[in-house]
Amino acid sequence: MSPPVYPKMAVIGCGLIGASVIRAARACGAVGEVSVADASPAARARIVELGFADSVTADPAEAVRGADLVVFAVPVMAMGEAARAAASGMKPGATVTDGGSVKAAVGEALAQALPETCFIVPGHPIAGTEQSGPDAGFAELFQNRWVILTPQPRADAPYREAVARLTAFWTLLGSNVEEMDDRHHDLVLAVTSHLPHLIAYTIVGAAADLEGVTRGEVMKYSAGGFRDFTRIAASDPTMWRDVFLANKDAVLEILGRFTEDLQAMSRAIRWGEGDKLFEHFSRTREIRRGIIAAGQESAEPNFGRDHRSPENPDTKAQ
Amino acid sequence: MSPPVYPKMAVIGCGLIGASVIRAARACGAVGEVSVADASPAARARIVELGFADSVTADPAEAVRGADLVVFAVPVMAMGEAARAAASGMKPGATVTDGGSVKAAVGEALAQALPETCFIVPGHPIAGTEQSGPDAGFAELFQNRWVILTPQPRADAPYREAVARLTAFWTLLGSNVEEMDDRHHDLVLAVTSHLPHLIAYTIVGAAADLEGVTRGEVMKYSAGGFRDFTRIAASDPTMWRDVFLANKDAVLEILGRFTEDLQAMSRAIRWGEGDKLFEHFSRTREIRRGIIAAGQESAEPNFGRDHRSPENPDTKAQ
Repeated sequence: MSPPVYPKMAVIGCGLIGASVIRAARACGAVGEVSVADASPAARARIVELGFADSVTADPAEAVRGADLVVFAVPVMAMGEAARAAASGMKPGATVTDGGSVKAAVGEALAQALPETCFIVPGHPIAGTEQSGPDAGFAELFQNRWVILTPQPRADAPYREAVARLTAFWTLLGSNVEEMDDRHHDLVLAVTSHLPHLIAYTIVGAAADLEGVTRGEVMKYSAGGFRDFTRIAASDPTMWRDVFLANKDAVLEILGRFTEDLQAMSRAIRWGEGDKLFEHFSRTREIRRGIIAAGQESAEPNFGRDHRSPENPDTKAQ
Repeated sequence: MSPPVYPKMAVIGCGLIGASVIRAARACGAVGEVSVADASPAARARIVELGFADSVTADPAEAVRGADLVVFAVPVMAMGEAARAAASGMKPGATVTDGGSVKAAVGEALAQALPETCFIVPGHPIAGTEQSGPDAGFAELFQNRWVILTPQPRADAPYREAVARLTAFWTLLGSNVEEMDDRHHDLVLAVTSHLPHLIAYTIVGAAADLEGVTRGEVMKYSAGGFRDFTRIAASDPTMWRDVFLANKDAVLEILGRFTEDLQAMSRAIRWGEGDKLFEHFSRTREIRRGIIAAGQESAEPNFGRDHRSPENPDTKAQ
């Protein structure tokens, strides 16, 4: 096996993403030593039991001491505080990245909190399940998934070298790495991820509140489309609260457009305008075909569908 | 093998549902002879090639002649016309059902068009994929899926016997059968199926129209949630246009509630009300857990996920 990309990695916050990064990096030999900081005593006890870290602490500054790569994997709005808590321990020249779903706000928070000697390369692995906590992590989570890096606008050689090394790290974990401007990332993800989650959360809540239809009925007949929404709406509440707060502008912009379009659909239904509905539905079908043609199906084997979980017998049923 | 439940079955309209009913009924010996009527010359030619029907015609009256079970499997708004075209050929005492996703409007249309000697038992198998046409049909589509029957409010023995026989038919095809009032069905399905489809169609359309984000990017990063919507939004445009037109009142009612809730979420994001968001997201997570506890996962192995299709390599990737 080649020498590790980073002799020591520190992970701050060890939920689904943090635990998966550790398992994946260990499995492919991308790192040597691994230290973990987590604020939750229960999580720390569990990480010790699971045994995938060399050291576990409550103190981010202790965990990052001597680390060549520091991965912040806490909810988006907690990044700044975690970074401030880690700052005093940072090794000069260490690469710092994160796993947050919003990039501009996180990039700013990290830059404000950390010493200038760090190379900050914010990142977003587009991978997840609706599970959370250290037990949810697994080594295959990032395989064939996109990881978007949003490097700072600087072209100096040491920084670009740090970006290249982080790219090599994720590639070794099985991911496809892309670079993107952070604000553009936030707009793209507002469309492809944040709005879908917001809508799923809303429709599942609305269904649960309906008089005249029992929750049991909603569950029983969820196969007609609703079930896909419940899967998304089961994602971690803290993480998603933070995503909407941290990416407010892009989410509200996209949400406004969606609402306008939904009102147009509503009006077409009310006035029996079948042609308008038909035309719209035909267009979206083409978009789906485009996604299939682009081969995106295979790039997304496990969103919200953790096949190793006993609660999802789908795979066997197929 | 036991004698067939129905010596002769006629299927009017041979798309995904019609073709699947035929394949499933043949596979388990639930029917003897099968006749098909389809308005499309191309579909008729293809049905002859596929060879799963004993006779294929353009004329519904001819197809239903002598049939003990007649299944209307055309789009919801076409049911009345198809029934009128079949009426003159109906055998007295035949059982008539359908596969439409809206029940009150269809039940009325069938009752108006058909002779009183028929036993009309509207039905809705909650099963489907985003494929359509006679080639899309497969024998396993209804296995472990719910079929909702919405019998007329009559208690006479011959009618109840017809309902019992149709129940036996679907049970033999592997389905779980429930009876429900037709208006209640339309409300339940507006929540669990019609609104999810309308929203999916809308969000996919809105994403495609966005300046600053290319369609390629939307496709590429669709794993973050969007992809589940594109699958739903690829469903048959004619079928869904008709569903919204035929179930207008229930859909607009549910849509109104959803829009109110979405606006409340939007407001919470704009004003940074993290607690409200967190509380809402925690509630929907519980609902998902309820669905899993109710075992509904296993009842829904194939919506929009036709694993036999080469375009979906998900199963292997898992």
